[in-house]
Parts: sequence; C-alpha cells; structure tokens
Amino acid sequence: MSRPVITLTTDFGEGSPYVAQMKGAILSINPDVQLVDITHAVPAQDVRQGAIVLGVATTVFPANSVHVAVVDPGVGSDRRIVYARIGQQQFVAPDNGLISHVAQRTRPSQVIWLTNRAFWRTEISNTFHGRDIMAPVAAHLSRGVAPEKLGEPIDDMVQLDVPNVQVASQEIKGMIVSFDSFGNLISDIPASLLTEAVKTSSLLIRCASHDVRRIVPTYSAEPKSSLVALIGSSGMLELAIVNGNAAQTLGVPIGEEVKITW
Amino acid sequence: MSRPVITLTTDFGEGSPYVAQMKGAILSINPDVQLVDITHAVPAQDVRQGAIVLGVATTVFPANSVHVAVVDPGVGSDRRIVYARIGQQQFVAPDNGLISHVAQRTRPSQVIWLTNRAFWRTEISNTFHGRDIMAPVAAHLSRGVAPEKLGEPIDDMVQLDVPNVQVASQEIKGMIVSFDSFGNLISDIPASLLTEAVKTSSLLIRCASHDVRRIVPTYSAEPKSSLVALIGSSGMLELAIVNGNAAQTLGVPIGEEVKITW
Amino acid sequence: MSRPVITLTTDFGEGSPYVAQMKGAILSINPDVQLVDITHAVPAQDVRQGAIVLGVATTVFPANSVHVAVVDPGVGSDRRIVYARIGQQQFVAPDNGLISHVAQRTRPSQVIWLTNRAFWRTEISNTFHGRDIMAPVAAHLSRGVAPEKLGEPIDDMVQLDVPNVQVASQEIKGMIVSFDSFGNLISDIPASLLTEAVKTSSLLIRCASHDVRRIVPTYSAEPKSSLVALIGSSGMLELAIVNGNAAQTLGVPIGEEVKITW
Repeated sequence: MSRPVITLTTDFGEGSPYVAQMKGAILSINPDVQLVDITHAVPAQDVRQGAIVLGVATTVFPANSVHVAVVDPGVGSDRRIVYARIGQQQFVAPDNGLISHVAQRTRPSQVIWLTNRAFWRTEISNTFHGRDIMAPVAAHLSRGVAPEKLGEPIDDMVQLDVPNVQVASQEIKGMIVSFDSFGNLISDIPASLLTEAVKTSSLLIRCASHDVRRIVPTYSAEPKSSLVALIGSSGMLELAIVNGNAAQTLGVPIGEEVKITW
Repeated sequence: MSRPVITLTTDFGEGSPYVAQMKGAILSINPDVQLVDITHAVPAQDVRQGAIVLGVATTVFPANSVHVAVVDPGVGSDRRIVYARIGQQQFVAPDNGLISHVAQRTRPSQVIWLTNRAFWRTEISNTFHGRDIMAPVAAHLSRGVAPEKLGEPIDDMVQLDVPNVQVASQEIKGMIVSFDSFGNLISDIPASLLTEAVKTSSLLIRCASHDVRRIVPTYSAEPKSSLVALIGSSGMLELAIVNGNAAQTLGVPIGEEVKITW
Repeated sequence: MSRPVITLTTDFGEGSPYVAQMKGAILSINPDVQLVDITHAVPAQDVRQGAIVLGVATTVFPANSVHVAVVDPGVGSDRRIVYARIGQQQFVAPDNGLISHVAQRTRPSQVIWLTNRAFWRTEISNTFHGRDIMAPVAAHLSRGVAPEKLGEPIDDMVQLDVPNVQVASQEIKGMIVSFDSFGNLISDIPASLLTEAVKTSSLLIRCASHDVRRIVPTYSAEPKSSLVALIGSSGMLELAIVNGNAAQTLGVPIGEEVKITW
C-alpha cells in the first residue's frame, strides 16, 4: 500500500527545531508517512502570505494528501482549528484564513472544527498547537481516521478577502502578490484573462513606473537585463528581469498595482 | 514493520551538500529509513548551542529513534565518538558534550565508545566523521545491530557544565539560552520553578534593563508591541514582544541573566 | 523491496515552494520513493556552481539513485533535457553542462535526449520544466521504466570546460572552486597530486597574497585563528582558518588561483 503524504507549511523559519518537533509528533503516531516540507519561510505571522504559498504549492500533490499549515498568531486564544477537504486534498490549519486562496478556487466539501481531544497529544501547550493538535490530527488522518470523528462540522470557516482582479473593458487591474527566489514579481492576474489583450498591438502593462509592452513566451526570449512580462509556472502574469533580479532592481513592494490596458 | 527514524543535527548550514552526503551514506546501508532534519543551522562549532537544540527537539520522537549530531570542532583529533541510549532514544555524536542537555535530564543507560570499524565506511577522511563513521553507524543501528557490537562501554562521557538555575528564597536566577525564529528569548527557567512566584502580586522579571511584572498565558493576551513573559512550548520561561521580534528590539545577547524576584 | 532514491538539486532557494511542487509531481507518480534534498542554494542560474555541487554530493548514494538537477537559465528555449547513466548513478537535467563535473570523472554509459511526452505531465509550462518534465521522468525511472523509452540516444551532451589543474615539474596550479558553510576555501587540487610535494621542506601554497607552508592532517592541529591547508572531506586541498571563517577573513573570491611550488 502506498505511503500517505503529509506536508508542512509554517512561519517557523528554515532550520527551526520546532518543525522537527511536529515531525516527531507525526511519526510517533504514523511512522510510515511520507513527509514533505512546503516551506517554513512564510514571513512571521503573515497569514496572507501563507495563504498565497498554500494556494500555489498544494496543486500538484497526490489525492488525499494532508497539508498542515501553521501560521498562527492567535495560538492560545479562542480561535478555532479546522480540518477542510477541498477537492482531492485535505488541510489542517488554524481558522484564520490561511486556506483562503485554496478555498476560493474550489469550495470546501467538508469543514470540521477540531474539538475531539482523543486525537491530540495528552498535554497541550498554550503556544504550540502545531505540535500538540495539528500534527497528531494529521497523523491520525493519514492512518485513515474519518474526519467527522475529529470534531463538529461548521459552515463559517474564516475566509480572507482575497483581492479580486478587476476586469473592465480593455483594462485589467491586479497586484503583485509575491516574489520567487529569482526575484520575479508574481501577480494575481491569471493567463486566462489575457487572451484578448495579447492579440492587440497596443498592450501596455504598467507596474509602479515600469512599462512592458509584450508578453514573451520564455525568459530567454529577450536579451539579458531586459524587463519582461510572461506567464509563470503557476499560470499567473509575472514581471522578470532576464538573468537578473526584478524585486531588487525595481524595488516594487508586494501589493503594488499591476494595470493592463490595450 | 514500521520504518525506523534517523534524525540529523549539524552546524553545516541549511542547504549544505555535506548533509546530503550523510544521507547518501545512511541510505546506502538502509534505504528504508525515515530521515528527519532537526536543524543544520547550529552556529558553526558551537557545541553548547547544539546541545540546547538537541535537548529541545528530541523529546517528541518515537521510541528507538537514532539521533545523529555533528558539531565537531575536534574532528580528526583523538576525541572519541559515542553511542548513548538515553530513555527510549538513541544518540550518535562526538564525545564533546553535545548531548549534555539530554543526558542531564535523563541519565544514559548505555554509552559505547565507537571503535569497531566494521560498521564504518571503508575509507575514513580526517575531516568528515559525520559521513564516514556516525552516519553508517546510525544506519546499522536502524537495521537492528546491537549497540554493544559497535565498540567498548564507557562511563566517562564528556558532560558540559549545563548552567543550573539558581533558586533562593523569593529569587530565581537563570539566563537566556536561545532565540527562536520569531525572536522570542528563551530562558533556562522551567515553569515548575514558578508556581509560587506567579501567585504573588510583587512578581518582577528582569532581563538586562527590561522589566516584566506578569506571566501571561498566551502571546495574544496583551496588545501588539507589548513585552510579555510566558511559558513557551518547551515548558521554559520566555520573553516575547507581541507580534514583534524581541531579540532584534531589545538587543539582549544569549547568556544574559534573567532574574525573578517576588 | 527497498525504496528507490530521488535527489533534488536546484537554484530555487531553501524553502522555495517550487521544490515542493516538484516533490508533489514525483509523489503523484511514485509515492513510495525516498526523497533527498541535496541543496536548493545553488546561486541563481549558476550552472558552473551547480555542476561542482553535483560532483561533490552524488558520490555517496546507493546504486540506481536518480539525481534531478534544475539550474536552467534556458528553460523554454530549445535547449535539450537529458537522462544520463554515469557509473551506478542516474541523472536528469537540462543539457547545459550541469553534470559536467560528474561526467568528467566517469564517462556516461548512456545519454538520452528526453523527447517522449508520455512520461511528462499533461500540461507543460514554459517556465518550469523541473516540475513538468524532469520530476515526472525521474519518478517513472524510479518505478523501473527503461531509460531508452524516454527519448533518443545522443552522444553530444553539452560538457562545460571543467578547468583542469595544471601540473608542471615542482609546480601545481589550480583554483578555489567553492566555499563550504564554515568558510573553508575548497580548491580543485586533489590529494593524489600532492604526494611528492608534501615530503619536501620547501612546500609553499600561495592563494592571493596568503602563504601556507605545510599541509596539516586536521583542523585541530594548529592554534585558533591559524591559516592552514589540509585535505578536506571531498579529497581536495582546502584552505581554512582554525575555528574561523577563511572566506570572510581573507576575502578571496571563487576562481582565485592556488599555486603550489616545492
């Protein structure tokens, strides 16, 4: 039988021993799981960035993978912790909007508020529910425990206002939502909105004071140091500097508007 | 049968290919092991910090896990390499005090000086015993080799002077022993010493010139930017700035005294 | 049956969610694989450094391991992607010289240009062939797919000019090729070239304006802060500062000449 997958996404920092504690808690319940780190470099307590990362990274996993996400500034308060089934994937996270991007794309088919302590560690700290509640619950799920045993169904999971791209006649407005490690600026504008614009000769993509007039198929289509626009690996419009680092060179912050006209 | 766990803790740096070499050496002997990175971000050659990390991170693993730790400034000298069974956990490390924190909490039930080359790689470098001795020994242990076959029993394993918290009448003195990735300042004062102090109205926690007068249950109990004291996920007293980074803001070094009076 | 090993080496940065996407793509095809990260800290688009890392790190893995390497500035152009069997190891990488160091040591016994889309993901992006082509091909290889099914055999795989050490009578010239995380300066001069030199009393190792006159067996052979030369764990001559960081202290760049006379 194949090994079930559990992924971990946190703001603990790469190399944090707290991640290892979560893995120890999981392996104590199910030693045969396949563990995958998505990232532990979410900026501290930045639920919105965590939500973006989860939205991007969890699209390519096998059915029934369990994704545990811990960006949890409210740990120890009365914020809820939830299980959600979304498409073929499963999520365990604080109910603070961390899975908003995933849930906006596909409506969750089941959401459970985790209340059944039988699936938690015996001692629950006030500061580390990732280790004491979320990790063990994920391990039990990976062993086949039915989600409905974990707590009570709810229908009011917290959903962040995921900023929607504004589409008008011959104009689209979105924003830069993240940088990748090459310094490429990734927007929230999907390729599907651009089919008309790219056919015109009057296309203009403006971000801060920077203008780009064409969407290229690949980074290598333009000379070194050119600013280019292209559809990145997540299917979103990106701005990049060929063989360079656009984030550093342009100094554009996350949240900056990207406006497309034609 | 469940997969045995081997963890790795080093000062090689996150992303070091030397870590991969240790994993390759392990998998060449036992490809069915569950590998877990605890951290590779121990400050270079800082045995004391490595000892603290191991003390914190290895408490939550399944019985019989093998923890390999390589912070080894004396590699190539005549320092010994040891196997130690401590409680339900197993350790393989240079005999330089790296497992002092673990061993102070629970007395090792078995310590073996690794001398049997039958369980090492064929060629032994002068500079990388993590790959050439410790990794293969851990892999053989994970396959069920009895520890007594690995070398000679000893009873004088190096034990660092783990600074003990000083407890007097209405006064406790400890120190900051580490920062976590949120910048929280973690002390060596366990919650168990504070049961009397927290009941009084005259509690004063002083670290450098910073005073805190109450231990809060959670980070979210006080307004943003407040300096708070609380019991962290390892059961130790921490100083934190709500939604902020105490290490950066206060500039307190590791080793700074924490004094509690009441 | 033992679990097949797939390793990953990229320039995506530690903690990049793109690495997780590659793992998801692999696990969707073979959930029972043993995944090992070699490093994701190759400098962005630096094929030469990636080649050095692969040359060092892949020597210690079990037979038939599949090493996927993605440092791919030409992604989306017409550069080829190749499979290569080299000794007992297997490689999947863009055909840009990334496996030059490995291939220089041992001549590849089989090289296949990946052209058979049956083993790729259904949708192929222009910017992320690591996820869409290389990861799934590696997963199919780990399940026993024969390499000849993946495409066409070729005999002109791109080979970088791996700078060769120059050996004259009583003189050897090489260069610094990388730093490790301790700041040790690692050269391309193997121990095997130094057997004669080390026997003489006139040995002189010069790098920039720094002279060393003896090769020591271990870091601990000289006092703290001494500049020493020694044979490192990869069998190459290294320059190191005892309990210090030579790269930071000496400011020597990668590529700097190392000249040995005697």
